[in-house]
Amino acid sequence: MPAKMLDLYPTRHTDKPEWQKRLDPVVHSDELSGSPVPHEKVEGFRQKGYMVLPGLYQEAEVAVFRAEIDRLRADPLTRSSEKTIREPGSESVRSVFAIHRDNPLFARVARDERIAGIARFLLGGDIYIHQSRLNFKPGFTGKEFYWHSDFETWHAEDGMPRMRAVSCSILLTTNNVYNGPLMLIPRSHRHFIPCVGETPENHYRESLKKQEYGVPDHKSLEELTDRYGIETVTGPPGTAVFFDSNIMHGSNSNITPMPRVNLFYVFNQTGNIPEDFLRSRSPRPDFVAERTIFEPLVIQRERFI
Amino acid sequence: MPAKMLDLYPTRHTDKPEWQKRLDPVVHSDELSGSPVPHEKVEGFRQKGYMVLPGLYQEAEVAVFRAEIDRLRADPLTRSSEKTIREPGSESVRSVFAIHRDNPLFARVARDERIAGIARFLLGGDIYIHQSRLNFKPGFTGKEFYWHSDFETWHAEDGMPRMRAVSCSILLTTNNVYNGPLMLIPRSHRHFIPCVGETPENHYRESLKKQEYGVPDHKSLEELTDRYGIETVTGPPGTAVFFDSNIMHGSNSNITPMPRVNLFYVFNQTGNIPEDFLRSRSPRPDFVAERTIFEPLVIQRERFI
Repeated sequence: MPAKMLDLYPTRHTDKPEWQKRLDPVVHSDELSGSPVPHEKVEGFRQKGYMVLPGLYQEAEVAVFRAEIDRLRADPLTRSSEKTIREPGSESVRSVFAIHRDNPLFARVARDERIAGIARFLLGGDIYIHQSRLNFKPGFTGKEFYWHSDFETWHAEDGMPRMRAVSCSILLTTNNVYNGPLMLIPRSHRHFIPCVGETPENHYRESLKKQEYGVPDHKSLEELTDRYGIETVTGPPGTAVFFDSNIMHGSNSNITPMPRVNLFYVFNQTGNIPEDFLRSRSPRPDFVAERTIFEPLVIQRERFI
Repeated sequence: MPAKMLDLYPTRHTDKPEWQKRLDPVVHSDELSGSPVPHEKVEGFRQKGYMVLPGLYQEAEVAVFRAEIDRLRADPLTRSSEKTIREPGSESVRSVFAIHRDNPLFARVARDERIAGIARFLLGGDIYIHQSRLNFKPGFTGKEFYWHSDFETWHAEDGMPRMRAVSCSILLTTNNVYNGPLMLIPRSHRHFIPCVGETPENHYRESLKKQEYGVPDHKSLEELTDRYGIETVTGPPGTAVFFDSNIMHGSNSNITPMPRVNLFYVFNQTGNIPEDFLRSRSPRPDFVAERTIFEPLVIQRERFI
């Protein structure tokens, strides 16, 4: 059997969540010299699985992004689109998917050197967008997002073979400790925690609202937080956060009046495209997980003001 | 009409949430000289509506309380009691009420000088327990508690006439920013924000799980947080928090593995007992709001180890 036919990270086939060591590097470029961010940031990312870059986008750029989001959320086409996910039990728009394809402005953000250049460096080669979305966690009613490793989902449900993808979130509102910020378990990206149980058919639509399957077990989460603790990402608008595809993360609800808005891009390395044989079920729609367009991003410095 | 027949804080009778000035003092003792806590703590309480006292109980005392709580939560009598409130959609015990009456240990905590002495000072006279409970916000599934002023509820649903009550929470686990800690809007206690709409009959049982009626409107909450911000209470086990009956507060959900456990006592001044005419509906059960026993607490220094 050729190497590519092996499932190196089995999950959702077992009754016991036995931890496995990560088999892939975290930073895939061999040479730090080409890094677009300071070396200590890269080292922090390697060790803890994430890094925060305040001020990557200017206030005026954030204003441009916010105006476009307000326009999109009010647009009847967006509201009726299957690519739009609502809050559980409400009509509020929670996420709009595939913004790198459908929206000219957010397509330019996707290939902007300031984020895509960092992703290309971390992943050590050409990249494309596996998934993109804008997240709008409203004030007062924003619900929690339970703990998960993105890679575990992308591997089980999309067939992504290896840990060679990275997520980038651009904060467009202030993220405080109290408005449901991203919580990460630092260093958890070095373990693969398989999930117990099978994936139901058409799981994706519910799972984007509320995770119930494909979630890590309580004991593993206790063990991870005992060992490594929990860190929250806070910062002003314009902050960018990069986190490894396999880091355990989640967020609590948001009863404050302050919405939490961000742009979210998942960069995958072009040698790591999904394999059908790794999926146990029918594929998720391609607005959630890219399945046809794997051309490398043409990265360039974009201007938004 | 005698003064006592007036409703000084009308709420739930109106369509418009018109703010009203607080008519009562915050600290009811005239002389700071008798204060059991440093004067700057009292001043902080007066201005912001709450104060945090780390280390009021020792680790060994907390261990005694925790052991009793574990015993209680496992006790079939507790599990089947009407005084026990469960998490929405789960069998987990969320709160056990009237612990100052039913539990000898927690009755002694209620009259312990370390908390009751402070309450008596703040309220400027004899006090009794209006409500007590242990709160157990479990890990992984702890739900949010929406914004509210306790006084608004006690006034509308129990008939408490004036703002002359204080809540004390004793933290029995570490409260971090990420495990659903108490959030307060400092200085909000100086405004009375009436709630719109009527109180449904038998509202209390659902409201203890999830607030849907008697909640402040979005616009008032935005105005309050714009003016005053939000503060979270964090601290190690043994920390005590005193907060004014009218301060706006709430908490987010808790997906972390760390439960949030506390003892909660509401002290009311014996001149401020509930009046039937102020309630619009039938009274809540007396394990939620004391209606018969108004004898002053006999406050003394208690020992738990």
